[in-house]
Amino acid sequence: MSPTPTAGREHIGLLIYPGFTALDLFGPHHMLTGLRPARLDLMARTRDPVTTDSGVTILPTTTFDDVAAGLDILIVPGGTEGTLAAMCDEATRAFVARQASHAGIVASVCTGSLILAAAGLLRGRRATSHWLTLDALRLFGANPVAARVVEDGRFITGAGVSAGLDLGLVLVQRLRGTAYAQMVQLVAEYDPRPPLEAGNPESAPPAVVAEARIHFAAFSARLEQAARTLAATMC
Amino acid sequence: MSPTPTAGREHIGLLIYPGFTALDLFGPHHMLTGLRPARLDLMARTRDPVTTDSGVTILPTTTFDDVAAGLDILIVPGGTEGTLAAMCDEATRAFVARQASHAGIVASVCTGSLILAAAGLLRGRRATSHWLTLDALRLFGANPVAARVVEDGRFITGAGVSAGLDLGLVLVQRLRGTAYAQMVQLVAEYDPRPPLEAGNPESAPPAVVAEARIHFAAFSARLEQAARTLAATMC
Repeated sequence: MSPTPTAGREHIGLLIYPGFTALDLFGPHHMLTGLRPARLDLMARTRDPVTTDSGVTILPTTTFDDVAAGLDILIVPGGTEGTLAAMCDEATRAFVARQASHAGIVASVCTGSLILAAAGLLRGRRATSHWLTLDALRLFGANPVAARVVEDGRFITGAGVSAGLDLGLVLVQRLRGTAYAQMVQLVAEYDPRPPLEAGNPESAPPAVVAEARIHFAAFSARLEQAARTLAATMC
Repeated sequence: MSPTPTAGREHIGLLIYPGFTALDLFGPHHMLTGLRPARLDLMARTRDPVTTDSGVTILPTTTFDDVAAGLDILIVPGGTEGTLAAMCDEATRAFVARQASHAGIVASVCTGSLILAAAGLLRGRRATSHWLTLDALRLFGANPVAARVVEDGRFITGAGVSAGLDLGLVLVQRLRGTAYAQMVQLVAEYDPRPPLEAGNPESAPPAVVAEARIHFAAFSARLEQAARTLAATMC
């Protein structure tokens, strides 16, 4: 269920790429769908269907070549191996950098901030990412902040996966004001009640945090390697 | 980012239909993707791509006719007009009733509970729905409960849209235990921090609640009419 549109003609583009995490995207996407008649595009490198890291196949609405220049808002979701591949893909980095150069807001969820960083956009900026990948931001000259949503001017980055819901509301509030954002929140019934308290590395039991680190150790190592290589080639 | 699979071979089927709300689905879907090698299917009436109420087109992985009998878990997302159409569609009701008759867990998010109710599954049961549509459950003989997640035996229903994240964790905890559910929560970084406090009709400003009711008045009237008609034809 989504609330009434009010005024607005923003063109909002959400990047999709093989292996992105669906919930990273659908948190902000849902909060922003109330913003019609704003235009929401799912932008991929080609017209081919894009499959998420959980095996869901989604059709892009436009491509890097076809999307009109001058997006008002660019949003980049994260993932793991797919995000690493997107970071290392020159066409993706160039597209993100080109769109970001004009966008009024550039946002990311989870490891999506590493794609922004790899595109050279976060140097000297405060930004966040999934808690497991915060340090990698530093390799690109960003200043990592362990927070749910970090706003640094027109750059707004969210923490892991589910932070996209909070980021989406922050965007809606910035674009349409508090009363409208409250309406969006109410209609999304965003009154979260996690049945457990393990949502961040401070609240989760240490053994669970340790297990998560072990599970993602190989990915973290590959990410660091890729980040070092990419950062070295950036001016 | 998703955590390690552990044991398990559950076959989890998520219903998709034109006009469903993507976030209703991707909340529980995300939490359950860590459950691989469990098998997650997106089940639609035909193989045709399915478009959500926000214009996102998703490919089904199987159809009502092709999905193996005996799903372990059935999950039904909600929406508005599309959900009304699904409630009124005899093939959808029959499919849901058939799968629910054997499933170990039957779950819904948001107005998805009205599809369960229309399929005759919630009579005499405690259940929830989006706060705007709770009363309609009563027309099908259910006992509406204003709560985030309501468990009545093998029937687990969630409140509006974003409640799917909480419901997903409830399912994971039931299927795999607390430590594993904590791992899923931590990797999803599900540590919600809404920037506003308007997520339910008690916390939202009365003017915002009133506006939401007005916006959905016509839908609510159509829903009540459809529910009365359907309920009258059920046994």
